[in-house]
Amino acid sequence: MNRTDTPVTVIGLGLMGRALAGAFLRAGHPTTVWNRTVSKADRLVADGARPAPTVGDALKAGSLTVVCVTDYPAVRELLGASDVELDGTMLVNLTSGDSAQARETARWARRRGARYLDGAIMAVPPAIGTAEAVILHSGPQTDFEAHKATLEALGTVTHLGADHGLAALYDVAGLAMMWSVLNAWLQGTALLRTAGVDAATYAPFARQIAAGVAEWLPGYAEQIDSGSFPAEVSALETDARAMAHLVEESEAVGVNAELPKLIKAMADRSIAAGHGGEQYPVLIEEFSRARGD
Amino acid sequence: MNRTDTPVTVIGLGLMGRALAGAFLRAGHPTTVWNRTVSKADRLVADGARPAPTVGDALKAGSLTVVCVTDYPAVRELLGASDVELDGTMLVNLTSGDSAQARETARWARRRGARYLDGAIMAVPPAIGTAEAVILHSGPQTDFEAHKATLEALGTVTHLGADHGLAALYDVAGLAMMWSVLNAWLQGTALLRTAGVDAATYAPFARQIAAGVAEWLPGYAEQIDSGSFPAEVSALETDARAMAHLVEESEAVGVNAELPKLIKAMADRSIAAGHGGEQYPVLIEEFSRARGD
Ligand SMILES: NC(=O)c1ccc[n+]([C@@H]2O[C@H](COP(=O)([O-])OP(=O)(O)OC[C@H]3O[C@@H](n4cnc5c(N)ncnc54)[C@H](OP(=O)(O)O)[C@@H]3O)[C@@H](O)[C@H]2O)c1
Ligand SMILES: NC(=O)c1ccc[n+]([C@@H]2O[C@H](COP(=O)([O-])OP(=O)(O)OC[C@H]3O[C@@H](n4cnc5c(N)ncnc54)[C@H](OP(=O)(O)O)[C@@H]3O)[C@@H](O)[C@H]2O)c1
Repeated sequence: MNRTDTPVTVIGLGLMGRALAGAFLRAGHPTTVWNRTVSKADRLVADGARPAPTVGDALKAGSLTVVCVTDYPAVRELLGASDVELDGTMLVNLTSGDSAQARETARWARRRGARYLDGAIMAVPPAIGTAEAVILHSGPQTDFEAHKATLEALGTVTHLGADHGLAALYDVAGLAMMWSVLNAWLQGTALLRTAGVDAATYAPFARQIAAGVAEWLPGYAEQIDSGSFPAEVSALETDARAMAHLVEESEAVGVNAELPKLIKAMADRSIAAGHGGEQYPVLIEEFSRARGD
Repeated sequence: MNRTDTPVTVIGLGLMGRALAGAFLRAGHPTTVWNRTVSKADRLVADGARPAPTVGDALKAGSLTVVCVTDYPAVRELLGASDVELDGTMLVNLTSGDSAQARETARWARRRGARYLDGAIMAVPPAIGTAEAVILHSGPQTDFEAHKATLEALGTVTHLGADHGLAALYDVAGLAMMWSVLNAWLQGTALLRTAGVDAATYAPFARQIAAGVAEWLPGYAEQIDSGSFPAEVSALETDARAMAHLVEESEAVGVNAELPKLIKAMADRSIAAGHGGEQYPVLIEEFSRARGD
């Protein structure tokens, strides 16, 4: 079921909010918009959006309201105004924040009688409205199912679980993977450029390694869930010897060695804790330990 | 052409050397072996390998000699002995080391009249002899081409270029990617476990992100090679704001924040250098700069 006549509201018309409202409009949804700086609605209104004079008015117009502003304090400021009635509304908050803010805002919304889904957008504004735009949601499954068809106008939508904090957690976890792949590629590119190898020549090699290692993760996850890390393929201390090569090579050719050193430091600590004969995923113990001051 | 009757020699019969000699034997090559500790050859000799009494003798037996010992000093010690004649031999050194050692050993071997290929094994011993075992080679293309069919008994072999240092550089660059994907996955797993999500549930998400980002690398490489980093998809300062979320979330839920902080520090430095409005690959300038003391 994809009722494109379902009325929707978008609150917050920054770069991302405008992309969201635009995607709803293109999918045929009657779309009401509100933004603190009124002029940011002009283009959308020209394209058929209805500008609401107040937040309260905007909330009443849609059978669901997507909120996308700078941060959670802004969400609470604008939805918490005394003249705003949340009772009976369905809020989908796509503002970036952390898991604690998401859970707290969910409780706050419930106390005020609203249904609430938290979400995280893993995409840039131009991708919104295409399948490439991955949008994560967390909160009550029934609320997600009831509005999934409408939310699909925005991109590829997923429900992660009832815990409202999950979208924020998956979001930063996914971003950590993104930056890590990019940084490792940059480290390798920097190393190879010292030998006159250009980035385009090296990139396919990096791509193949990243994609190959990605395939190991589900198997390695089993070791973590079972809490047992037999060195079926290789022992951590074998890795650590090769890590020393990475550090030394980076230093010898004069590129940045911070990432290599952090990689090695994590392994060295785990080996010092007695895990040198176990397999790489045993490092979950180091990653799970508060550290980094 | 895959002449399985080509005689080969393997020097060094540690975990890896035994796997290499075993793969040559299984492929049908007459295989001569030598190891400092003689008893490590026993099993291979039982399987049909010929034990050479001396290094010099071993070198004469094969039309190519694979050397795989602990490190380059060991290579130079055993091949540099006064009774060892290198003139006219074809050496393929699969010992791990850095690019400078590889280049230096290549010059040393050439002065002594040997042909020399340097190599790096991106595999664990049980994978040797299967297509999964990626073995990188660098040195004269003609030497590689002349022996490629023989070397293919060991795994998937590649030639990276004439510079003997390339195998060592690609090796550590590839390992940096491997550990970075694993570490980012561990960071995410640690974050998600604080919300009761098990590793097996999170792993497919991490896999998808890693494989997806891997596909961006060739395109991003073009920015590096052209030295121009327009923010076509997203600007570095937008990334930096999300990096702050990753750091804060990691600290808030009490997991290790060192990797998040390093990710953010690299971006912050590039932004401080005036690159906030450019795209992520501009960080190549930070990665190319000696740092990490
Ligand atoms: N842009 C991206 O690539 C991207 C990607 C993924 C996620 N996100 C997330 O999406 C959210 C919005 O990002 P954006 O790129 O649209 O940011 P933006 O262009 O800076 O827009 C910010 C929006 O928030 C509004 N706002 C801020 N404080 C407010 C307050 N106190 N009361 C009412 N409205 C307030 C602004 O209203 P005014 O117009 O009146 O200032 C504006 O509509 C952020 O949480 C961001 O992290 C963005
Ligand atoms: N194992 C892996 O997973 C793996 C993966 C990729 C690359 N590699 C690389 O392959 C190489 C060998 O690794 P390995 O796992 O086989 O190590 P290993 O099991 O520790 O074996 C080391 C070998 O080097 C020999 N050796 C050391 N010093 C020597 C010297 N001064 N003179 C003569 N022989 C000497 C040893 O002889 P003795 O038997 O007499 O001690 C033994 O044959 C290393 O460079 C390693 O980094 C290994």
